[in-house]
Amino acid sequence: MDRETLFKCEKVAINVALAAGNMMKSASGGEQRIEQKLSPVDLVTETDKAVEAFVFNELRKHFPNHKFIGEESATDPTLTNELTWIVDPIDGTMNFVHTFPWVCISMALVYEKEPIIGVIYSPFLEKMYTAKKGFGAYCNGIPLHVSDCESLEKSLILYELGGYRDEKRINAIASNLMSLQEECHGLRSTGSAALNLCTIANGHADGYFQFDLKCWDLAAGALIVSEAGGYVVDITSDRFDLMRGRIVAACNANIAKAVIDKIQVHLKPYI
Amino acid sequence: MDRETLFKCEKVAINVALAAGNMMKSASGGEQRIEQKLSPVDLVTETDKAVEAFVFNELRKHFPNHKFIGEESATDPTLTNELTWIVDPIDGTMNFVHTFPWVCISMALVYEKEPIIGVIYSPFLEKMYTAKKGFGAYCNGIPLHVSDCESLEKSLILYELGGYRDEKRINAIASNLMSLQEECHGLRSTGSAALNLCTIANGHADGYFQFDLKCWDLAAGALIVSEAGGYVVDITSDRFDLMRGRIVAACNANIAKAVIDKIQVHLKPYI
Repeated sequence: MDRETLFKCEKVAINVALAAGNMMKSASGGEQRIEQKLSPVDLVTETDKAVEAFVFNELRKHFPNHKFIGEESATDPTLTNELTWIVDPIDGTMNFVHTFPWVCISMALVYEKEPIIGVIYSPFLEKMYTAKKGFGAYCNGIPLHVSDCESLEKSLILYELGGYRDEKRINAIASNLMSLQEECHGLRSTGSAALNLCTIANGHADGYFQFDLKCWDLAAGALIVSEAGGYVVDITSDRFDLMRGRIVAACNANIAKAVIDKIQVHLKPYI
Repeated sequence: MDRETLFKCEKVAINVALAAGNMMKSASGGEQRIEQKLSPVDLVTETDKAVEAFVFNELRKHFPNHKFIGEESATDPTLTNELTWIVDPIDGTMNFVHTFPWVCISMALVYEKEPIIGVIYSPFLEKMYTAKKGFGAYCNGIPLHVSDCESLEKSLILYELGGYRDEKRINAIASNLMSLQEECHGLRSTGSAALNLCTIANGHADGYFQFDLKCWDLAAGALIVSEAGGYVVDITSDRFDLMRGRIVAACNANIAKAVIDKIQVHLKPYI
């Protein structure tokens, strides 16, 4: 994609994200029809659906030949090499239900299975994170850079307990947490995968791992971390693959490796 | 204390908190002399010390007869019945070190061992939380009210792993987390006790528990939760006592009781 088209696509995405954010603000705290998806903690609100419909409608007007994958409309998404918008209309739906402010829309344009544009907008935190491949990452127009933390012992690590309820998985997660807790400066949990990645990108934390994600949780944020100078890898230390939903993101490869070393034993049965 | 004096004291505290917040903003992300206190994760920065010195100096100008307890100057604080300012200059020091934005100053005026004014200011989130006993709680001037969540199953719960490194304690905390994880909507961890309490007060989460705290972590936030209509209690279900450092705060007594029921078994050896 030429530079001019890349910039044009980003501009459209930013405007759509801002409008989607306004939809979230209007709906926040009001009465919501909330449906359960896979479990009692896997929820979708009418706002998730309305935002996705709005976003795809707007994007189709500008890019009728692009493909689209969205959390609320995809059943078993297949990513091709064509230009594809991957959208999570509300990342952090549980936070949105509770008005906990770590909520965002995450939009990525992907080409040949690699994100080339990432736009993540948090209307409640009033942060617009953007990145274009090869052009750096920004928050509210200010260039982002990951932290210069050099050791796990001095790192702040983000994680999510996720929505699991089965004892074996919960115990594995607990074991991972405790293993990291013994080593690092601290652990934090915000409830939004996309904003966790932005938090690594802007240097407010040093590492993040999660293994149960979908491409819409990761596509924009992974690019934003990379363009902010960070390191994104699969839990197996293989190359990161959008469609596998397993990510370790860190300010550098050393921290990512140290996190993987601490957690992989416990998660191996689940890889 | 008469109403006029109460309002005057709050006004002074708000102005001092704003100035303290500016000191934090100026120092954030810069080179810091960081010292270790009780453990490698119990840190104090030069900014913690500078802010506390500034705050006490300002308060003493206005209230020469009041008493003062501050995190960085107190060794073994004794709370009397006299008017006492209890101050944590930077609540969330570890976040401050990492520029993770959940950082605040927490200031309370306590009389006869009960908080009568609470002021918590987060310069990075740009939130000024205030409460006066009997006069309600506010965020940036807007009245606060806790959520109307009625069951643990639909609640978002805040907690902190804390700074423990001993295996027995870590296992107890993990056990508590997993016990709650099976029941509630989700668990979040921000790294600031005072802002966790504010998050309950503004209805963005429904419950919070922690057991290893000091009076400066809790004095302002406990009042803000109470004045927002919430419920604050000791882990034993006894009356909350500032100097015991154990708190369960929730939007109502039912949620607090449900949290206590889930966690007390594991923490009993440590009470």
